[in-house]
Amino acid sequence: MMMGAWIVDQGAADITSAFQVTRRLHEEQTPYQYLEVYDSRRFGRMLLLDGAVQTSEGDEFIYHEMLAHPPLCTHPAPRRVLIIGGGDGGLLEEVLKQPVEQVTMVEIDGAVVRASRQYLSTICGGAFEDPRTSLIIGDGVAYARECRDRFDVVLVDAPDPEGAATGLFTAEFYAQLARLLSPDGLLAVQSGSAVYQQDVIRTVRRHIEQSFPHVRTYVASVITYPGVLWSFTIGARTHDPLQVSPQEIERRLGGWNLRYYTPSGHGAAFALPPYLRDAVAIP
Amino acid sequence: MMMGAWIVDQGAADITSAFQVTRRLHEEQTPYQYLEVYDSRRFGRMLLLDGAVQTSEGDEFIYHEMLAHPPLCTHPAPRRVLIIGGGDGGLLEEVLKQPVEQVTMVEIDGAVVRASRQYLSTICGGAFEDPRTSLIIGDGVAYARECRDRFDVVLVDAPDPEGAATGLFTAEFYAQLARLLSPDGLLAVQSGSAVYQQDVIRTVRRHIEQSFPHVRTYVASVITYPGVLWSFTIGARTHDPLQVSPQEIERRLGGWNLRYYTPSGHGAAFALPPYLRDAVAIP
Repeated sequence: MMMGAWIVDQGAADITSAFQVTRRLHEEQTPYQYLEVYDSRRFGRMLLLDGAVQTSEGDEFIYHEMLAHPPLCTHPAPRRVLIIGGGDGGLLEEVLKQPVEQVTMVEIDGAVVRASRQYLSTICGGAFEDPRTSLIIGDGVAYARECRDRFDVVLVDAPDPEGAATGLFTAEFYAQLARLLSPDGLLAVQSGSAVYQQDVIRTVRRHIEQSFPHVRTYVASVITYPGVLWSFTIGARTHDPLQVSPQEIERRLGGWNLRYYTPSGHGAAFALPPYLRDAVAIP
Repeated sequence: MMMGAWIVDQGAADITSAFQVTRRLHEEQTPYQYLEVYDSRRFGRMLLLDGAVQTSEGDEFIYHEMLAHPPLCTHPAPRRVLIIGGGDGGLLEEVLKQPVEQVTMVEIDGAVVRASRQYLSTICGGAFEDPRTSLIIGDGVAYARECRDRFDVVLVDAPDPEGAATGLFTAEFYAQLARLLSPDGLLAVQSGSAVYQQDVIRTVRRHIEQSFPHVRTYVASVITYPGVLWSFTIGARTHDPLQVSPQEIERRLGGWNLRYYTPSGHGAAFALPPYLRDAVAIP
């Protein structure tokens, strides 16, 4: 691999973003996807699945903090957490910063976990070795259907709704996850680019609305993702994310100095501009 | 010009973003820069200067609303406004939505105004024809040095700090603008990509601090700009943007239904994540 090569992420048919990389550390056709790990000067190591940037050392904290902490801080005492997907371990590491008792993670592709442990240890840290972690390599859809456990918070960290991940964006799947939640539990999912996948956001919201009274979409600027502005959607039974006070978030984050999520950033993330509310059909 | 061509905006040495375009409507070497206007399916017409996207029909409202309204709503009664740059007229159009009495706009390159009037009428609207508008084609730096008028708000809508625009990013220029402001006046400038021009933000803040007691940086997601997350910086004599109430903004926006800026979005724009505050040296 040569200095000065570029990875080109085709975010949509008519837009791309490209990042100069210095070295390819790993490539592999897994049973589910094509996996690559690159070194870049600006964003450190980058993980690609089927050519799409999944995470980078430089900005992973933005995506992972923002998928983990808004729902976890909305629940008054999340003890048991389920993660579907998230094979790089970055989300798991964030969840473990909260006073949770057990985190079950179900990732379909063991190769992603292996590559992350080997090449992206700054992203997953010691999360896979944490005694609170139970890692299951398996199909999240089948797991949700068969599981008899109960969780306070379920997080879905899926790639784009294509190929193996399609089943993670259906109303049936969200209904199964709703069944796994404690009576005051919450579901949070990454719901796609707020720029180039507004159809995904609309669909996810419609499907989650079938199982949850409160549906809230929020955004964060994830630098290496297409369009940067990225969406997340929460389905909540009783606890509305808009009702959490900055004081409660301050208390919950305790001694962690997060780099993106803050008490004032919580509300800001939900303050979507009108053009985006209109585009994704938020009343 | 062929269907399926791409414009590639090199945001930095090691990153690019690219947009598929369908037609080139105009190209011209002006005395100051190379000017192009393209049609794109996703963002409508796009204006490029020296190869960098300046504005597009699809997302111009984000940048222009966010450079105009946060400072204008911070001043209790802005009657006289000065715009330096902003040749496409989009900022002018936003300023004229407020109950201002007079807007002076100083743009160095008449070709930008001509091209905008001809090809980007959805961006500039009737702003150049508004009786409150005084358009001066000339050098903003020289204008600021020689001007004897006074303004309540000065807005600097400059391209990247290179070539002809370099003088619009100096401490001397900001000091001249401070001299032009009424005792409770405000200055607001676009201060570059929050991702790829953090050095620009730091420099702009340091320079503005020399002339203003309150310096506040905020962000908006401008889809077609490199890194999307874009920064703006306000220098204020007496009115702190953080102290404006949502109720006051609601009142000031009156009947305008803006598409990005809202009373709740005002505070959200200033809630910068810690990693960004650190990167641009905000205490």
